[in-house]
Amino acid sequence: MSATSLLVVAHGSRRSQSNSEVEQLTQIIREKACSKYLSISHAFLELAEPSIGNAIDQCIQQGADEIILLPYFLSAGRHVQQDIPEQVAAKQAQYPQIKIHIAPYLGASQGIADMMLALVKSD
Amino acid sequence: MSATSLLVVAHGSRRSQSNSEVEQLTQIIREKACSKYLSISHAFLELAEPSIGNAIDQCIQQGADEIILLPYFLSAGRHVQQDIPEQVAAKQAQYPQIKIHIAPYLGASQGIADMMLALVKSD
Repeated sequence: MSATSLLVVAHGSRRSQSNSEVEQLTQIIREKACSKYLSISHAFLELAEPSIGNAIDQCIQQGADEIILLPYFLSAGRHVQQDIPEQVAAKQAQYPQIKIHIAPYLGASQGIADMMLALVKSD
Repeated sequence: MSATSLLVVAHGSRRSQSNSEVEQLTQIIREKACSKYLSISHAFLELAEPSIGNAIDQCIQQGADEIILLPYFLSAGRHVQQDIPEQVAAKQAQYPQIKIHIAPYLGASQGIADMMLALVKSD
């Protein structure tokens, strides 16, 4: 049986409050799905810790043999298309026996339009 | 009966592809909800056109008496807390008879955690 870790990956901000929002989201995801995964944690591309590399190291130290990154990004810009894959490729080269992959980014989700319309009702 | 316009507000990017993603999302929202609203369009906070101010002008020229902005942002940073409200306040002062309000930003949605978990399955 594989031991899979989820890693919520956000941009990172100089504002600690924005980084806390990512921690809180990760906590909600953890409460929903912790029974299915070895661990559910978060990482930041830049400007905040833990970095993607350090978070991947930690998943592996906890015994993960598969790591799935969940990009908390709205557009397929340079961060999603280039920066995150580059950091993952470096770690994949370091740990060839671990399966590290990147899920589609949040903005590509089918349900985003419905969620935007729901904002009107919560207004 | 009020004539309400929806305005999807995104940050805006120098990459035209990112701006196109916002246009495409707005088109999906329009297909889902056009029967309920006078118009459904998009605007950018910076770096791309139409600006929030120009988009609000256009809604009003089309006959809107209520405009609801839907912030396509993941965190409650300066853009959500300060920049968008300031631009809206300037337009509200210009058009006191029009109801202009800002819905909660996307990242505040209850369903985000489930949507993040769904990314694993679409991987």
